[in-house]
Order: sequence, then C-alpha cells, then structure tokens
Amino acid sequence: MNIITQQNIQVGEIANGLPLTIPVYRIKGDGNGPKVYIQANMHGAEVQGNAVIYQLLEQLKTLSLAADITLVPYANPIGCNQKSGEFTLGRFDPITGTNWNRMYQDHSSLAYEFVEKYVDLPLEQIKPQFRQVLLEHTTAQLDAPLDRLTTGKRIALNLQRLAHEAELVLDLHTGPISAKHLYCPEYAKESARYFDIPHVLLIPNEFDGALDEASFCPWWHLKLAYEAKGRNIPVFTEAFTVELGSQEKIDLTEAQHDANSILSYLNYKQAFYGAHFAPKEIARYTCQLENYRTFYAPMGGMVEYTATLGEHIKAGQTIAKILRMERYLSETPLNEIKLDEDAIAILHFASASVNQGTELYKFFTQVERL
Amino acid sequence: MNIITQQNIQVGEIANGLPLTIPVYRIKGDGNGPKVYIQANMHGAEVQGNAVIYQLLEQLKTLSLAADITLVPYANPIGCNQKSGEFTLGRFDPITGTNWNRMYQDHSSLAYEFVEKYVDLPLEQIKPQFRQVLLEHTTAQLDAPLDRLTTGKRIALNLQRLAHEAELVLDLHTGPISAKHLYCPEYAKESARYFDIPHVLLIPNEFDGALDEASFCPWWHLKLAYEAKGRNIPVFTEAFTVELGSQEKIDLTEAQHDANSILSYLNYKQAFYGAHFAPKEIARYTCQLENYRTFYAPMGGMVEYTATLGEHIKAGQTIAKILRMERYLSETPLNEIKLDEDAIAILHFASASVNQGTELYKFFTQVERL
Amino acid sequence: MNIITQQNIQVGEIANGLPLTIPVYRIKGDGNGPKVYIQANMHGAEVQGNAVIYQLLEQLKTLSLAADITLVPYANPIGCNQKSGEFTLGRFDPITGTNWNRMYQDHSSLAYEFVEKYVDLPLEQIKPQFRQVLLEHTTAQLDAPLDRLTTGKRIALNLQRLAHEAELVLDLHTGPISAKHLYCPEYAKESARYFDIPHVLLIPNEFDGALDEASFCPWWHLKLAYEAKGRNIPVFTEAFTVELGSQEKIDLTEAQHDANSILSYLNYKQAFYGAHFAPKEIARYTCQLENYRTFYAPMGGMVEYTATLGEHIKAGQTIAKILRMERYLSETPLNEIKLDEDAIAILHFASASVNQGTELYKFFTQVERL
Amino acid sequence: MNIITQQNIQVGEIANGLPLTIPVYRIKGDGNGPKVYIQANMHGAEVQGNAVIYQLLEQLKTLSLAADITLVPYANPIGCNQKSGEFTLGRFDPITGTNWNRMYQDHSSLAYEFVEKYVDLPLEQIKPQFRQVLLEHTTAQLDAPLDRLTTGKRIALNLQRLAHEAELVLDLHTGPISAKHLYCPEYAKESARYFDIPHVLLIPNEFDGALDEASFCPWWHLKLAYEAKGRNIPVFTEAFTVELGSQEKIDLTEAQHDANSILSYLNYKQAFYGAHFAPKEIARYTCQLENYRTFYAPMGGMVEYTATLGEHIKAGQTIAKILRMERYLSETPLNEIKLDEDAIAILHFASASVNQGTELYKFFTQVERL
Repeated sequence: MNIITQQNIQVGEIANGLPLTIPVYRIKGDGNGPKVYIQANMHGAEVQGNAVIYQLLEQLKTLSLAADITLVPYANPIGCNQKSGEFTLGRFDPITGTNWNRMYQDHSSLAYEFVEKYVDLPLEQIKPQFRQVLLEHTTAQLDAPLDRLTTGKRIALNLQRLAHEAELVLDLHTGPISAKHLYCPEYAKESARYFDIPHVLLIPNEFDGALDEASFCPWWHLKLAYEAKGRNIPVFTEAFTVELGSQEKIDLTEAQHDANSILSYLNYKQAFYGAHFAPKEIARYTCQLENYRTFYAPMGGMVEYTATLGEHIKAGQTIAKILRMERYLSETPLNEIKLDEDAIAILHFASASVNQGTELYKFFTQVERL
Repeated sequence: MNIITQQNIQVGEIANGLPLTIPVYRIKGDGNGPKVYIQANMHGAEVQGNAVIYQLLEQLKTLSLAADITLVPYANPIGCNQKSGEFTLGRFDPITGTNWNRMYQDHSSLAYEFVEKYVDLPLEQIKPQFRQVLLEHTTAQLDAPLDRLTTGKRIALNLQRLAHEAELVLDLHTGPISAKHLYCPEYAKESARYFDIPHVLLIPNEFDGALDEASFCPWWHLKLAYEAKGRNIPVFTEAFTVELGSQEKIDLTEAQHDANSILSYLNYKQAFYGAHFAPKEIARYTCQLENYRTFYAPMGGMVEYTATLGEHIKAGQTIAKILRMERYLSETPLNEIKLDEDAIAILHFASASVNQGTELYKFFTQVERL
Repeated sequence: MNIITQQNIQVGEIANGLPLTIPVYRIKGDGNGPKVYIQANMHGAEVQGNAVIYQLLEQLKTLSLAADITLVPYANPIGCNQKSGEFTLGRFDPITGTNWNRMYQDHSSLAYEFVEKYVDLPLEQIKPQFRQVLLEHTTAQLDAPLDRLTTGKRIALNLQRLAHEAELVLDLHTGPISAKHLYCPEYAKESARYFDIPHVLLIPNEFDGALDEASFCPWWHLKLAYEAKGRNIPVFTEAFTVELGSQEKIDLTEAQHDANSILSYLNYKQAFYGAHFAPKEIARYTCQLENYRTFYAPMGGMVEYTATLGEHIKAGQTIAKILRMERYLSETPLNEIKLDEDAIAILHFASASVNQGTELYKFFTQVERL
Repeated sequence: MNIITQQNIQVGEIANGLPLTIPVYRIKGDGNGPKVYIQANMHGAEVQGNAVIYQLLEQLKTLSLAADITLVPYANPIGCNQKSGEFTLGRFDPITGTNWNRMYQDHSSLAYEFVEKYVDLPLEQIKPQFRQVLLEHTTAQLDAPLDRLTTGKRIALNLQRLAHEAELVLDLHTGPISAKHLYCPEYAKESARYFDIPHVLLIPNEFDGALDEASFCPWWHLKLAYEAKGRNIPVFTEAFTVELGSQEKIDLTEAQHDANSILSYLNYKQAFYGAHFAPKEIARYTCQLENYRTFYAPMGGMVEYTATLGEHIKAGQTIAKILRMERYLSETPLNEIKLDEDAIAILHFASASVNQGTELYKFFTQVERL
C-alpha cells in the first residue's frame, strides 16, 4: 500500500470568518516518474471530477509508482457551495461575475527573461531551474500585500503553485450537458490518443486564463525562446482540461472509466511500473479551437434538444425545436432549428428555457480523425 | 376545425415598465360538457406543461367538443424568465422567497356563508350561483387598491379567477428529477384511474396555498356545509396537480403521451363526442400525503442517486452514495445512505451537491394499489 | 474582569464537507440575576447586531454581573455568506426560499401537557421544570434521525435550545432601509419603555415561526393553561425582536447606542449590580401588528422614497415618486404615490427598482403613545 | 416646445417570448450643433441615470437647440429587471457572468482600412464618411445570422449603432456606493472642466469593452492612422462614462444637478442657442487609470467603512474597521485597515459583508489638479 498524505491549504476566508480550505492529497513514487497534478471542481457544478479523483486514489493506493501524484478535489470552496435554487451557481464569482477558471496568471514572459539569462544552460538543468522560477514567482504573487489580490486570484494562484510543480497537469471539468471531450494543446496532440475520449479540441499554445494554459504556456514559450536563440528543446510540460460529461451529476461507475482513461495516459507517460492501463480502441476526432462553433439561440423560447451529444450532424439537420406558445395562433409555435454545416454536437445548454442569444450548442466543425 | 381564441391578460409590470402578460387560449364546445381549465409553468423551471398544452391544442383543434376548455401556458411571466446561471430560478419570488404556488386565496369560508343564505336552493342552481360568488370575490380582490396586493398574489388571483370558471382544473407541474405523479384530492380518487400516471398522492381536502386546493376546497366545503344542514350534494369541481416528470426539460414526444393521458381523463368526464381516449392498463399506486416522506440529506456532500425513480425500494436498500472527498483518509469517503422502510422513489434533488438537510428524495410510503 | 468563554457549535455541513459552526459566547454572573440570550445575524444581510454584540461584550467584561448572558453573533453561517452580486442574499434559504427566521419550532402545546401533569406544582418549581421540558424536547428533535431535519430547521433548533435556557431573549435584526423598532409581545409592553427605541410593534402572543415567538409562546401558553385550571402565574420569559436600523451596514458608534439601550433593559431586569444604564427620555409609539401596514408598489418603476423613516406622515402626503421613463411621452412619467391615512414610516424597500406589488413601505398606523 | 419622438427598439426576446425593448427618445435641433447620444442604466442597479434623462428631457423641451439629441433610458431590459433578493443583480448576464458593459465591439481597425482607402479625402468628408463606415459595420454585425450573436452582444450592438451616430456620447453609470466621477479619455481632458464632477479618471485611448471606448476609439485611431500618413486631423468624437453616485437609488433633486452638469458640457459644445449653463467653480482632480487603485479586503469580515467618499485620505489613515466576532477571545476582533499612501476615496463596496479579496474601495492615487 502506498502512503497517501493530506494537507489542507487555506485559500481565503469568508464574511463570518470561516476559512476556505482545499484538501490536497499526495502520493509518492520512487522519484523516477513524472510529477503529476490533477484537480477537480474549480467550477462549482462540475462535481464529477471529485468522483474521478476518488476512483484514482482507490487504484493508486496499490500501484507500483514511479510518479509523484498530487490530487486536489473541491478546488474551489466558494463555487462548490454557492447554491441558487436547487442548482449550484459555481461558474463565476457571484459578486463579480468573473469566471473562476479565468483567473490564473500568465507566466509566459518569464520564459524570455530566463532564456536571456541562461541561454547556454545544460538541457537537464533547464527544467528544474525554470520550474523553480515559476514557483518563486507564484509564491511572490501570493506573498503580495493582502489588499492586492482578489478572492478568485488567491484561490487560483494557490492551485497554480501546486500545478507548477508538475509536468503533467489535468484539470477535470464537465460541460453543462455534454459529451466527453479533451482540451489539448496542439503540440501534445499525440498524447490525446491515450485518453478514452473521442473528441479532442486542439487549442493554440496561447494563454486565455485557464489552468491548462497557465501550466503549459510558460513551457511552450520557453521552447520558443530557446528556438529564437537557435536551441531546440522539448516542451517539458503537458496540460489538459478533461471534460468528463455533464455537470450536477456524480456517477461512480463512469468515474471509474474516466479514472482508467487517465491512468492509461499516465501509464504511457511512465508513471507506473508494470501497469496494464491502455487506451481503448475508439475513433477519435479533432477540431481546431477556431472551428469550435457556438450556436446561440436564434430566438427566445423553450427548447427540445434533438441532437444527440457526440452525434455527427449533417448540414440541414434539425438540432432543436423551440416552442413559443404565446404565438400559437399568430405564428409558428414550434420552430425547427437547423445547422448549416456538418458537425459533431459536443454540448448543449443545461436548461430548456433560453433567451435569444443564449448559448444553445457547441459543435466541432471541420472535424478530422486523430 | 374548432376555433381557438387568444387573450393576453396583464398580471403586473416590472421595473422598466414592461407589462407582464399571460396568453390565454380558449376553445369552445357545444355547451353540454364540463368547463375545463389547464395551466402550465407556474414554477419557472417546470416547462414541460407548455409542451403538453401545445400537444393538447393540436388535438383539440379537430375533436368534437362538448366542453369549453381554457389553456394557459407560461402562467408565471416572472418565474419563466428568472435565470441564475444556466438554470431557471422560478420556484419562488426572487425578492421574497415565497413559493409562487402558495399564493392562491382560500375561498372555503365563502361556502359556509353561501349555505347560510341558500340552504334550500335547488340543486341545479347551487353550482352556477356559488361559482358566481367565487368569481365575484376573486374579482373584488383583484379590484382592491393597487397597494394591497403583492406581485405574486396578483398573478395568482388572475389565474384563480380563470380556474374558478371551470369544474375540471389541471395545474401542470414537474418535480426536480421526478417520476410522473398526480396530486389527487381524496374524494376524487376514482378519477385518478383515468390518467396514465402510476403514482397517485392522495391529499386531504384542505387548503395549503396551491391552485388545485384553491379550486376544489371551496366546493368541498360547500358539500360539508350542506351536509351540516342535512343536505347531500356532490363536490362540483375536481382539481389536480399533474407532475409530468423532470424540470428544465422539453420533450415533445413525452408531451404527447401526457396530452393523451389528460384527454383520457377529459373523455371520461364527457368533454368530447365520439373520442376514443382511454387510460392505459398500468399499475397505479396511492400514498396518503401524510405518508409522503421527504428524506433530507443526512450529511453534506456530493451525491450519486442510486434509486431509480418509480422504483419500489425495499427497507435497507441503498438509495444514495454521498462522497466526501475531504475525509478520504480520516473517515469513510463514500457513504451509503439506506432507507429504513419499503417505499417508491418519486423524485430526487436536481443537483449532486447537497448540504446536510437538503431535500434528497421524496418517497411514497405505506403504498396501496389503486 | 469577568470571564468570557467561547464554544463553537456545529449546526450543519455544506457540500464540500465544511462544517457550519456558530460561535457562542458566555459570561456568568453570580446566579442571582436572570438568564439572558442575545443573538444576531439570523438573516445574512442584517449584520449590525454583530457590532452590537461586540459593544455589549466590551462593556459586559467589566460590569458587576448578576445575570448569566449568552451572546451569539453570526447565528446563520449560510445566510451570512450567501452573496449574489454585491449584496448578501441571506433572508431565505437559497435552495428552498424559506425564510430563515420562520423555522423555529412551536412548543406551546407542551404547556398544556405540563399543566395536566403538574397542576399543583409549587410556583418556584414551575419555571425550572418547564424549562427543562422545553430543553428536553428541543434536544430530542435535534437527536432525531438525520434525514428528518432540513438545513434551516437544524440551525434554528440549535439556536432555540440556547434561547430556551434564558428568561430574557433578544433577537437582533434590521429592516431593509429602516428606522429602529421593536417587536414586543403584548404582555411585555411595559418593558418596551426601557429600550431606546421609539417605535414599538405590539404582537399578539401567537406563534408565527420567529425566535421571539418560539421563546415566549410556550410560557404565555403555560400561563393560559394554569389560568384554565384557576391558577394565576406570571409569564416567566420575555422575548423581543430588536430591529436596529438598516441592513448591509456596520456602524460601531450606533452599535454602542444600541448596546446601551439593551443594557438599560437588562439593568431594569436586574442583570447587573450598581449599573447606571437607564432609558433615554424619548417619545415612544406603539402599533398593533394588525395595523402594521405593508404598502405594495402600485406600479412597477424606479422609486424615489420621499418619506423620512420615523416620520409622522399625514393622510394625502406623497411618500414616493415612481419614475416610468418608457412612457415619458404617452403618460405621466413621474407618478406621485400618496398614503391615505396618518402613519409613521418605519421602513422601505432596499432598492429603487420595484415590480408592481413589491413591498414598498411598512407603516405604523393607528398609532398610540406608549 | 421642441418635439420629442419616441421609438421602441427591440433588442431581443426572453424565454416566454416577451420582446426586450428599449425606449429611444429623440429631439432635433436646427442641424448646426453636434449630434449627442446619452444612455442610462446599462447596469441594472445603476438607475439614477434614468432620472437624469428625465430632468434633461424636462429642460430640453424648451431650449433653443442646435444639436440633435438621442436619449436612451433603461438601456438594458434584462439587467433592469433581474432581482435577487431585494437588490438588482444587473451588473452581469446572470447566465454567463459577462459584464453587460464589456460587450461592445471594437471598431478601431476600421480606421486603418479607411485611411488606406481615403488617405486624401477632404477633411470635411472624413467625418461623415467614416461615421457611415461605423454604422454600416455595426448594422452588418446585427444582420449576421441570429445564431452568431449572444444576448448581451445584440443589446450592445443596438446601442452602439445609436451611439455611432453621435459626436458626443455620454454613458450614465453609478458606482456601488460612490462619489461622482468621470471616465474621460486623455485627449478630451479639457472637456472635463465643463462637468460639475470633481473627480476625473483619465483613461488611455484604448478599447476595453465599454461604450465610451467603443465610441471614441475608432476616431482616436482614425487620427493616429492619418498621422501615420502625415496628416493631422482632430478626434471627431468625445465619449465619457459619467458615474453619478451610488446605485439602487433615485434622487430627482440630485438628478437635476447632474442634468445641469451635462447641459453645461453640451452648451460648451454649442448644442444650444442662448443657454446659460456653465460649470460650477469647483476643485477638480485627475487620476490616471493605471493609478486608480483597487483595495481588496485583506480579510473576510463585516466592514465599517470609515473613509468618506470624495475625502482626501492621508497615508496611514484608517479607511475601514473589519469586525471578526468569531475570534473575539482569541485574536483582535476589530481590525483597523489603513491605506499606505495619499489618495482620494472614490467608491466602496455596497455591502458590509466581505470575503477576503472582495473589492473594498477604489482610490484615486497620484492625484493632480485639473
């Protein structure tokens, strides 16, 4: 049995003084494998990642470990607990509206400063030394005067500091009602074959605020910065956002499948000795982020979603019927909404009630086989 | 083709002056059938009733009608449109917290006044005259000085006035995540056989604020009041709350089944000529309201609901697993929640995240066959 | 210096397992004075009571105490921390809409059972023994199976158990935008002279869910029950809801005045030795609860509140101007709202934006001098 | 009497089909003055601008007008009406969290395309022709397929199209609890002397999503683009965000002062004939946006705000006291928060309850006299 340790880190405090804490679980390998960081539930309603971490821990206890693995459920103690009616209002700070997953810090510019200083650093020292720089900078930001940090930034930086310690970073999310899909940086495309996830969204190597980007962008820019100096180095870190399915749902059986999918990826990355986790033989499809199409409700109304998630839609196919009962006599009460191109339906809105302009669906378009 | 007319009634106005209106559809029979009132969507997230009204109208257009039928979708123009995150926060007035479906007026006491005055009124005049009293009182309350009515009360009274015109009243609701069930007043139990709804909740003939009660209670008390004077009269009105399934969902196919179930009931009540709507042969179960058991979450956590809705649970059966990842090492992270008696699972909470004391499930207990 | 002790009681737990705790401060006298219970912040936005408890503790430290005093700030750990935009959404459970201050338990019926058993009990034993009954019943309810209690009920019962220990109970609240006022049970009217609060609302001795009622109703019914048996006993408990002013505001100077007002009342009740706290010479006005008039917005719009709180309004006086800019050309854009009777303006709505039917003002009418 | 016309433009529709409309008032001069656009209430709780528009219209009716003036109250029909508890939750889309005032479109790049085409266009034709380009582009975006626009973007583009018609654009906002202040683009600094607003925030000529920027940025870039070609042209448009004071408040008297302040600015811009509106003699202070300091709550707690808004704070001065009653015995319950530099307090948070990291205050630092 491997030893698992727990640390509760404090990331804030609320109005009545209750501390906001996050449980951090660590399990150590023999030091020869990669360092791994996995977190879940940054958005309050996206709870399934906690169940995946549960199923991971259940298996990691008894595996022969090369890797050091850090697992963080309940990453956002405010978002987890923000109820509004029966549902969890945990996508954004209820005070400011800021998306909890857009508050990480971009450390890409540190790469260029680093390369200026250490242009000739031996390859094996680049990784630990640049990692040290990232950690120091994150710590320095957390050590800034208390009045300089927002609630969400303090949470994000605490998590980012943990993530910066790792070479493999997985941020477990879900869509609203969603098929499984993976946000994968372009350069790490090959790794996407090791997850049991049929839909792979290829994102540019650019920062847009999320943890996966915050984790890999500095390393991608480190590669670019050395390239500009004529050196070729690998990108030392991979980071993914894993979209497990639908929000507001715990499914322990499905969580085990998702845990196996993650173990398959980690096995490929040599996290274990003698483990047999391998990816399933499934068709995998990719879509460039720029072709990831949001389809907004063309009218307000009550929606029947008729596209199955994961389904390959044909141009002209009906994807929704929007009911407008107040015009039963005067106009068409039932309105068929069609898509004008071939696509894969990845997710749709969580509610049947939409305003004109509410995000109705997201589609992979210009799809390719991986 | 029958003629359908539309009237938009104004039930309030909001801060920027926009009027709150409700569409009222009317379709007339030859005057020999009962008067029917059907409304939907009093709770904002419970949208499926609108689809049922759509499917009803589609069929009513061509039926040979004895009954006059009034159909009201979008009964609550505030609740329909109150978004909080992706979901609809339409169960209660967002300002006061008052449940939109607890603001109807109890007119039961009018029955006793009526009987005092009209103890010897011929039977055939009782119904129209008492109906007139109910309508006049409701109108008088709506005509009170504007500063005497809350927002919700004004909406409720407008709907109640429409409902008081009818002898058969159906209020279409849904549960959060729910099996179909019917709130049925004890005295109207026989009618429950005509709906295709397997679960029948028998409610006492007492007022608790909802439309069904507001509709039948005065008539029930009229019967009691005459009984006290030694006359025996029927209860002239039946009213039901029809729980169609789950909230936040439109399913037009299912709506057609539910429309047929309602048409079966109306057919039994002689609303149509030559129609063949009949109830399905299904097992129907009843539960007294006092045995309708709410099971509150015994602990906070993330819930996997393991009881299938509609399922006959045995005492000792696991109904949920509650995950508590912050105590993975110190205590049991996965907690099996068991029920201590036989029951039918009727509905469960809409979200996987619960506080200690959140309504987790509702169960029929002490079940009998209808 | 008196010794203050702190106990943190756990009253629930939220979705990520964080315990909900409430700090309870106790300070002991020599046993000759009354037992006192003071709580604050049951409604999340009504924070000023915490500051009053702070100022009370600062003075209680050095007073010569006969009374045992229990003080509970932050009485509602969910309500305190429920943000929605910049404001605190703490008036009702965000999941159910239930007012946090309507979940206490009515123990009045215990009085009748008690008198049946102990009709001849010596007067000096009635108080401790009935108190014991109240405590035992509250504890029994808290010891019920965990699935039987809602989140709010568990919080309320925990507080109620603390309150049942006391003979003097003060629940510190605020209005939205409000003048100071006191909810006072009819029988304790004389005591109202000892608070520095000009507006006294006389409430009937009946239970409506709030802590003051939960605290005094059993004792009032005990008196009635003995009366029915021909014995005359005093009401052994007084309980008040103290409305300190406006919500969402901390004012430490004002809190000191309010602390002095409470100390004046406690001094009158012989809580201290040699203390000089005395009520101010101010005009005090009473209003029966049935005459406490809520004035709902007769139209939707944007409101300028023109009545000063605490002001004695004359019939016909303008109390608000409601702006309706969308009808600047077609109708009157600026609408003067008048009151049709003499009254004292006690509180008004917290926002300038109202729907038709939103609670605009509350007025004392049929006012008398105390 | 000048003629005022009203047009109601539809900017969307909500779930029950209700159209979202905005009233647009227009009043025409003789064509010799500037075109003016004034809107209010883009953020739902910031209602005072509607009262200012009311007071403006009352005066504009009888002025001798050179300018054409368009006035738009209730600019955001969703935000206006989004209640959560007693307050208005109108700062961001309740579904997505996106700030309603960050959804305007950046048309700056059009300037460069324009100059490429029309490098030698006579000066007097530049303004009308570029304005035409802006209008056409905005219209084209609104005419995009309906599934391409979010709810907020559609509202914003409709308003932006109205604003693009004008040379003087005023967007009326308020802070939470706030002193009056003006967002003023650097190049229009001289105009700030004509408003009766003591605090002027100088913003860079860069787009960050708000209406003022959306209005002036294209014109600023047009100037830059011609400059790059060796021509010097004026910036043909001025746009300001006017922060009128505190949210959730209507004050008609104060609105008249603010109307006069705006009329003074318009008079300076030759909107009227023979009008005597002139700025008051007051001290005016400027602050660069980069020096506009947000001070986040260094701890969670209940806050007494002790800095008066508009007050010139000295380094070391206490700006707030944060109460933490749960640690009355163990640590300091009352925590004095000090500012470490000289500043003017401009606004503070609307509630007394803050989390660690909530925006507590905003300060002008590095202040200069205008």
